[in-house]
Amino acid sequence: MPRPAPYRLDLASYPVRETVPTRYGDLDAMGHINNVAFAALFETARVRFNWTLGHINRENGFRAVVAMNAVNYLAEGSFPADVEIATGIGKIGTRSWEILAVMHQHGRAIATCDTVLVMTDPKDGAIPDDFRTALTGKLMRVPAA
Amino acid sequence: MPRPAPYRLDLASYPVRETVPTRYGDLDAMGHINNVAFAALFETARVRFNWTLGHINRENGFRAVVAMNAVNYLAEGSFPADVEIATGIGKIGTRSWEILAVMHQHGRAIATCDTVLVMTDPKDGAIPDDFRTALTGKLMRVPAA
Amino acid sequence: MPRPAPYRLDLASYPVRETVPTRYGDLDAMGHINNVAFAALFETARVRFNWTLGHINRENGFRAVVAMNAVNYLAEGSFPADVEIATGIGKIGTRSWEILAVMHQHGRAIATCDTVLVMTDPKDGAIPDDFRTALTGKLMRVPAA
Amino acid sequence: MPRPAPYRLDLASYPVRETVPTRYGDLDAMGHINNVAFAALFETARVRFNWTLGHINRENGFRAVVAMNAVNYLAEGSFPADVEIATGIGKIGTRSWEILAVMHQHGRAIATCDTVLVMTDPKDGAIPDDFRTALTGKLMRVPAA
Repeated sequence: MPRPAPYRLDLASYPVRETVPTRYGDLDAMGHINNVAFAALFETARVRFNWTLGHINRENGFRAVVAMNAVNYLAEGSFPADVEIATGIGKIGTRSWEILAVMHQHGRAIATCDTVLVMTDPKDGAIPDDFRTALTGKLMRVPAA
Repeated sequence: MPRPAPYRLDLASYPVRETVPTRYGDLDAMGHINNVAFAALFETARVRFNWTLGHINRENGFRAVVAMNAVNYLAEGSFPADVEIATGIGKIGTRSWEILAVMHQHGRAIATCDTVLVMTDPKDGAIPDDFRTALTGKLMRVPAA
Repeated sequence: MPRPAPYRLDLASYPVRETVPTRYGDLDAMGHINNVAFAALFETARVRFNWTLGHINRENGFRAVVAMNAVNYLAEGSFPADVEIATGIGKIGTRSWEILAVMHQHGRAIATCDTVLVMTDPKDGAIPDDFRTALTGKLMRVPAA
Repeated sequence: MPRPAPYRLDLASYPVRETVPTRYGDLDAMGHINNVAFAALFETARVRFNWTLGHINRENGFRAVVAMNAVNYLAEGSFPADVEIATGIGKIGTRSWEILAVMHQHGRAIATCDTVLVMTDPKDGAIPDDFRTALTGKLMRVPAA
């Protein structure tokens, strides 16, 4: 997995932004934010982001799970400064989509996160139209090549 | 990131194996092992694996950090069954290397993990010879093409 | 809360014993097992202990919650050594009971834990007889005064 | 340990107050904030509170550790609502002191936390005068009997 493209480090590339406080328990034995704690911070921002996509009614039988999660570590994180996490949608497939994010602390990018979600229910058929529209509304702002 | 190759799911492909108990706190609101808890389980196995590589004396000025960590989720995990994590070395570069792992529970693969470590000190020069030898001794058993 | 009585430090005072591996993520910025991680280790042992009390059928409408949890810290804990956690029942009331535990590492007590559980359903009535019998079967072995 | 006194549930009894966001990973398999996550939330507020006490220079050889931590659970907590944690100093002894806290969510108290810290260094002598003054400045506001 190559290092993230420069636009991935820029908060302005992402439609949604959130400030997340760090916790003492995020620190590892080196006194830095633990690698796993980065994943927990991204997860919290992602769950909130998913809610901004609008209500996917579970009674409709729609369900999706995380199929892949990759974090690129760019610099060490510290406590007690907050982190800023910006999130947006990457590629949208027939039954899966990417959620992309960057984490800043003290004004610079310290990690990126790529998550792939996959529909597991219903067993066949594509992402429902209303949800596809919601995803499309949160696409990353990718610079022209 | 494509789905893991079949040999990546097979415990026999990895030179080191460890049983790791799950914890109640690993469960998420769905009653399954949380995605972040998978990362914590892999981390613990990886730290122990790193020790089997022999003693890299910190006084020698050698230091490495995790540059990338990617988890592929294949099936849901549960508590209280233990998981089995098998670990081996993938590609070895001049200043970086891959640690690859698979997690089994109830006799089947539920996740794989790819971690890239990068030397940060000394600032120049390659992986020391004795450590390269240790890494080579724990290479994955990849089937012939 | 006074320091624990000497018998509380002795593994032989408790009817149930379990070995629990520590995790790298249990460490705090001082390089010791974090105070909160002690609570997580005790929780995992307590959940397993609760299962040894036999099946309380949820369809019966029985439900209990943790009302209080107190940890006494006696010495620092370390990774990667396992901890040993021993657990037993303390006082049993009409609708509540105590679960008492001690954690050993490297052959000495490093923490004790007192947990009070309280029945929340059914709203009135006492602990069911079969469950009271199960609790009584796991009482602490308290030395004669 | 008896249930907390009424003044312990009142935010106005505590000199310091902080808002702490919950995380998705704080949830347990019941969909409520896990008991251990309550402890982690209190810990983060306590670490920040300790900093408001002013700088205890480690080069001075002063060191203290948590000797006891007790949480009373009063109601279930949920995600994603923030919690509000208020903190103050309880009893101050020769070499130890209490840090008391309450957690509110949705406008009501859901837990209290009592923590006892003990000086471990220097081995003899009492809490330094400047630190005792700082502790005294953050005492709980206890109603007259």
